[in-house]
Amino acid sequence: MFITTEPGVFKVSKTGIFLRGNLLYLTGMYSAETQVRVRYAETDQMGIVYHSNYFPYFESARAESIRQLGLTYADMEKMGVIMPVIELQCRYLRPALYDDLLTIKVILKELPVHHKIEFHHEVFNEKKELLATAKIILYFLESKTMKRTVMPEPLLKQLKPYFS
Amino acid sequence: MFITTEPGVFKVSKTGIFLRGNLLYLTGMYSAETQVRVRYAETDQMGIVYHSNYFPYFESARAESIRQLGLTYADMEKMGVIMPVIELQCRYLRPALYDDLLTIKVILKELPVHHKIEFHHEVFNEKKELLATAKIILYFLESKTMKRTVMPEPLLKQLKPYFS
Amino acid sequence: MFITTEPGVFKVSKTGIFLRGNLLYLTGMYSAETQVRVRYAETDQMGIVYHSNYFPYFESARAESIRQLGLTYADMEKMGVIMPVIELQCRYLRPALYDDLLTIKVILKELPVHHKIEFHHEVFNEKKELLATAKIILYFLESKTMKRTVMPEPLLKQLKPYFS
Amino acid sequence: MFITTEPGVFKVSKTGIFLRGNLLYLTGMYSAETQVRVRYAETDQMGIVYHSNYFPYFESARAESIRQLGLTYADMEKMGVIMPVIELQCRYLRPALYDDLLTIKVILKELPVHHKIEFHHEVFNEKKELLATAKIILYFLESKTMKRTVMPEPLLKQLKPYFS
Repeated sequence: MFITTEPGVFKVSKTGIFLRGNLLYLTGMYSAETQVRVRYAETDQMGIVYHSNYFPYFESARAESIRQLGLTYADMEKMGVIMPVIELQCRYLRPALYDDLLTIKVILKELPVHHKIEFHHEVFNEKKELLATAKIILYFLESKTMKRTVMPEPLLKQLKPYFS
Repeated sequence: MFITTEPGVFKVSKTGIFLRGNLLYLTGMYSAETQVRVRYAETDQMGIVYHSNYFPYFESARAESIRQLGLTYADMEKMGVIMPVIELQCRYLRPALYDDLLTIKVILKELPVHHKIEFHHEVFNEKKELLATAKIILYFLESKTMKRTVMPEPLLKQLKPYFS
Repeated sequence: MFITTEPGVFKVSKTGIFLRGNLLYLTGMYSAETQVRVRYAETDQMGIVYHSNYFPYFESARAESIRQLGLTYADMEKMGVIMPVIELQCRYLRPALYDDLLTIKVILKELPVHHKIEFHHEVFNEKKELLATAKIILYFLESKTMKRTVMPEPLLKQLKPYFS
Repeated sequence: MFITTEPGVFKVSKTGIFLRGNLLYLTGMYSAETQVRVRYAETDQMGIVYHSNYFPYFESARAESIRQLGLTYADMEKMGVIMPVIELQCRYLRPALYDDLLTIKVILKELPVHHKIEFHHEVFNEKKELLATAKIILYFLESKTMKRTVMPEPLLKQLKPYFS
């Protein structure tokens, strides 16, 4: 459930629909978890996972979160929709080490009704320590025209129940 | 030269010293440019550079910016200082393509007097189009103890003239 | 079981010991399988997995094959033994594609009694098609001195039953 | 100049044409050099360049060797020809280290008249020490049909003078 501390900006109704600016959002949350084993190739000479090597973990976790809904990102590309990363933020709190079995959490806090989707990520090691957090924004684009589009209907259908 | 639109927060003196909170900063700017040729290995099946492959470009550009000051990051590690990435942000405006000759700009807007250093980056292609911008924060750590330290004196000495 | 077509060179006894040159080998085989899901980051603009991205799969498969014996490569490094890759060969028969669930096979045909270990690898997709084969030679080195050493006793003990 | 120790197999004429099996080859050699600076991202926790990270260096060196002939691999792809890697071998003699300025040599010993091209590579550090050698075989394929083709005429024209 979406919690807001800015009541003037968001209006959360019982049915889980709210307006931000002139855009309509559905409240709720979808989250999923994936496990990734750190490869030697992903470490650097500092003896930790090199900072940019977390992004393939996040990508992998997003793909698995879609698979858990019965679809695949590969299917979406076959439907003519690609999802380039447009913006990202990441904070590194503790290092991930070689052979660590990481849990990568994907959290979708809003169901997008436009071309933009925002994923939140959290990385934990086996001791349940939080290693990193990230926010990654992707666009839905038509692969042929590279024009903005919206989330393909089959995925939207699977996600909707989590946001109502 | 540091420009602030928040006169109540920053106090910029003629000598280029200002306070933010209780920390002392020196104003000015150091910037440097490096060129990187996009490798095939760095593209993905979307036909563009995969988003996380920009970070080794930024790393490379930071290393070259230090080299242009007569030092190397490798020297710093030999002095017992490592610089892990603690936080990053990146925005992707236009795709970088295979074989593009990219110009990676590094901008240091503040000379850090503590354990934190913030680099700004800009990526341009040969048509001078801005492809991406990033902000990357690193810490200075003692490699033996993993405790926070400050910028090594030899680097500080080379950077100071740009901030006074 | 080791099969030789050069009876003059190898002498295979019932107890599974043979000589090659003046080196003693134990015959037999140890093999293990690991599954790896292809990441988007690992594809290139040809729409296939970039050739060098198979090597982290092989590394991962070797690590899992050791784990299946109740040890880890990470433990070995803690014992002061590192295993750099010294030589490799790889043949690419069919492309691996995004989101393919690959089976990576590791085969150890000989139990090394010296500083060298030779792993054979095979990559299959979900249709059981053979995508690639590889042979990778690593050395056992003492991490402190970088001098050649032999397989650590705990690993040798686990592997021996497969070669007698 | 091509040197053979198997006179019964190769017939080298003055004009630099020879037969191997029933295939026609042109003798001679084309070689080119490129410099690559080792990135931190390319090291691993052994403190050396991870073995598979040499392959993007080789790719880069091949691309530069074509550029030195006045063409680009990117142009070739625009002409509808792709060059996947089909087979590779690599030997690692000494480790490459962070910030090393490597010289990557590309050697073409034969001008292919069929779908296969074989590149030889050598890696040197700044002390002129040989760090690694490799042999990489690529195919010329039509990108539309994925069928075997031959070296595009414009590249062949530039290479021929080196082999006669």
